[in-house]
Amino acid sequence: MADFDVMRQLALESERKIVLLVMDGLGGIARASDNQTELEAAHTPNLDRLAREGITGLSSPLGAGITPGSGPAHLALFGYDPFQYSFGRGVLETLGIGFDLLPDDIAIRGNFCTVDEDGLIVDRRAGRIPTEKSAELCELLSDIELAGVETFVRPVKEYRFALVLRGPGLSPNLPDTDPQQVGLAPLPAQARTPDAKRTADLVNQWIGAARAKLADQHPANMVTLRGFSKDPALPKFDDIYRLEAAAVAVYPMYRGLARLVGMKVIPVEHPISNEFETVGKLWHGYDFFFVHVKYTDSRGEDGDFEAKKAVIEEADEALPILLALKPDVLVVTGDHSTPSHLKSHSWHPVPTLLWAPETVLPDRAVAFGERECMGGGLGVFPATDLMPLALGHAQRLAKYGA
Amino acid sequence: MADFDVMRQLALESERKIVLLVMDGLGGIARASDNQTELEAAHTPNLDRLAREGITGLSSPLGAGITPGSGPAHLALFGYDPFQYSFGRGVLETLGIGFDLLPDDIAIRGNFCTVDEDGLIVDRRAGRIPTEKSAELCELLSDIELAGVETFVRPVKEYRFALVLRGPGLSPNLPDTDPQQVGLAPLPAQARTPDAKRTADLVNQWIGAARAKLADQHPANMVTLRGFSKDPALPKFDDIYRLEAAAVAVYPMYRGLARLVGMKVIPVEHPISNEFETVGKLWHGYDFFFVHVKYTDSRGEDGDFEAKKAVIEEADEALPILLALKPDVLVVTGDHSTPSHLKSHSWHPVPTLLWAPETVLPDRAVAFGERECMGGGLGVFPATDLMPLALGHAQRLAKYGA
Repeated sequence: MADFDVMRQLALESERKIVLLVMDGLGGIARASDNQTELEAAHTPNLDRLAREGITGLSSPLGAGITPGSGPAHLALFGYDPFQYSFGRGVLETLGIGFDLLPDDIAIRGNFCTVDEDGLIVDRRAGRIPTEKSAELCELLSDIELAGVETFVRPVKEYRFALVLRGPGLSPNLPDTDPQQVGLAPLPAQARTPDAKRTADLVNQWIGAARAKLADQHPANMVTLRGFSKDPALPKFDDIYRLEAAAVAVYPMYRGLARLVGMKVIPVEHPISNEFETVGKLWHGYDFFFVHVKYTDSRGEDGDFEAKKAVIEEADEALPILLALKPDVLVVTGDHSTPSHLKSHSWHPVPTLLWAPETVLPDRAVAFGERECMGGGLGVFPATDLMPLALGHAQRLAKYGA
Repeated sequence: MADFDVMRQLALESERKIVLLVMDGLGGIARASDNQTELEAAHTPNLDRLAREGITGLSSPLGAGITPGSGPAHLALFGYDPFQYSFGRGVLETLGIGFDLLPDDIAIRGNFCTVDEDGLIVDRRAGRIPTEKSAELCELLSDIELAGVETFVRPVKEYRFALVLRGPGLSPNLPDTDPQQVGLAPLPAQARTPDAKRTADLVNQWIGAARAKLADQHPANMVTLRGFSKDPALPKFDDIYRLEAAAVAVYPMYRGLARLVGMKVIPVEHPISNEFETVGKLWHGYDFFFVHVKYTDSRGEDGDFEAKKAVIEEADEALPILLALKPDVLVVTGDHSTPSHLKSHSWHPVPTLLWAPETVLPDRAVAFGERECMGGGLGVFPATDLMPLALGHAQRLAKYGA
């Protein structure tokens, strides 16, 4: 793993450019019919060529057997020890929508929910109201005033919103108010530590006001609050690696993750070819590009083998757009596996290729797929090795010691 | 990695012998013409046989992406955490010329340089004066007397010399006096800490006297001093591993490294066959032999693929001399890679074979080369694993736990 002090000592200024293409949930397990994974079954002439010309292996996000969430999985890809560095879901959600969080802000993830006449939750997601409706309700809640504290209420997606409290002396040491099951009332905000008492009081005032303002709404007539947190002040890419980094991602959470590590976030829309073209437009302004493909994971979670395979094929087909930029180092990997057979994230290490025409010694992989990567020259390696490896291949690290 | 407390607990006295053959900078990357590395292209029937009969893998000196200097790379091979243990360049240089450094000596690396009439450096290496000239000048500087402190001035190579201060109460906490560029004057010695004040004063007296003595010389009319350091008092091989170890090396730096870990250093001259014959002469006196082949690295740094390949072939041809000694364990590896394509050390993990007729389970490697080692039974492993692995195969480690 990258020891950040060592990285800071060795990282060099350079013109050489690195692209980290993360296909979310890339890894899979084999279907019975032909013993192939989604990646193996996909028609991927470009990725196969890169695997032949590059070196392959399996990236282990959090170690053997551990299934990662998106946050820790991306931190590991970015070279951060995922057990040492962490942050609350509120921060992630807030940064994900592009909100400029200040160091002392308290970021909270909110859900609109439906309660019955006794105040008991009957739907934790308020019928998955459309984002447009959520935006209206957030507008309504933005009027709530708290003494000495500014509040910001922003829609995220469907029933999810973000609440930010800004003011002196606030604490994030509060547990969720979501009871996590229907038939119970939302919990009041509570202080986990004495210094959080005032914050809990303010949050309870806000919840009370929100309940009143939403009373006539349906189905979104109440809220629950989760993931109270502050910006974790992670070390940043330019500090650790001397990289000016840009993130190209269609989905708020990944933009938020990139922002946390100091990347400039470039909002972009699907399709994948559009993401890759956006990299081209930014090419001369940055050293490092984190490009995030979301829908491999989404289709894996849907349990749709063919649809996940199709997303992989879409990425492969668009790949010449990235290759035309002539990156010095191109890494293709996933943050974790999402086998469609399991319909969820999994612990399986992730097929990975590193392509670097100037510096790589190709292994014997002839295609990009799980089984080829199992015999690859990188072996099974911790995901946190990828950043130093990419920097090494970009010749952006000085020699250590005489 | 070897936990030294565990090693001390488990290491056994034994008659079984280990040879660690380090071909400096062994690893390479492939040339375009035939997609072969220097090692793969070399005709190496003996190494290939050892690879078939032994087990292979890739040794990672300092972790993914990090290019090692010779010091940390050798510490790792010897089982020492290269980030935990370190030492100054002065110590390395001094031990390298066979100087018997005492625990409280201050070792300094000196450069003869050329200054103009204003005292500004015009050549940081004094025209790379020959070693013979440097020896004369060191003789001249040996006359300088400092109150209460013995001084030793020894030539190293060309413009480089070693200065040792011996006496009570000296400190190595001084930065370099080399300003690292021409057009500036050498810096005065400065104390980084109050306890180094007296040492700085003494060093400045010495520099003043040296300036006066060299005033009529040309081009070596001044000195700069670097790498102020003391013997780092590393734990020693006999203590950690119960090994009586001998080092056979042609080059001062590697002799110095071996001395730091408690090996008996046997000065020897090229060719490689002479080094191997020297091992034979020492065979009954030691348990462990570190044999260092320098010129694989040198030719790699020259960017001369064919010449590096030829050094590998020279080692292969001489190998029967070592094999005739019937070592119980023979490890062949490098301290790091030096691809001739890059003309420098690199981060690529190093092809490694372990041959131990009594205990090894051979993998499927059919030759000694990077690509064969990528599929080897040892996988990609930290270089610090090699010592415990060799000891294990020599049956020199007791069982841990009941």
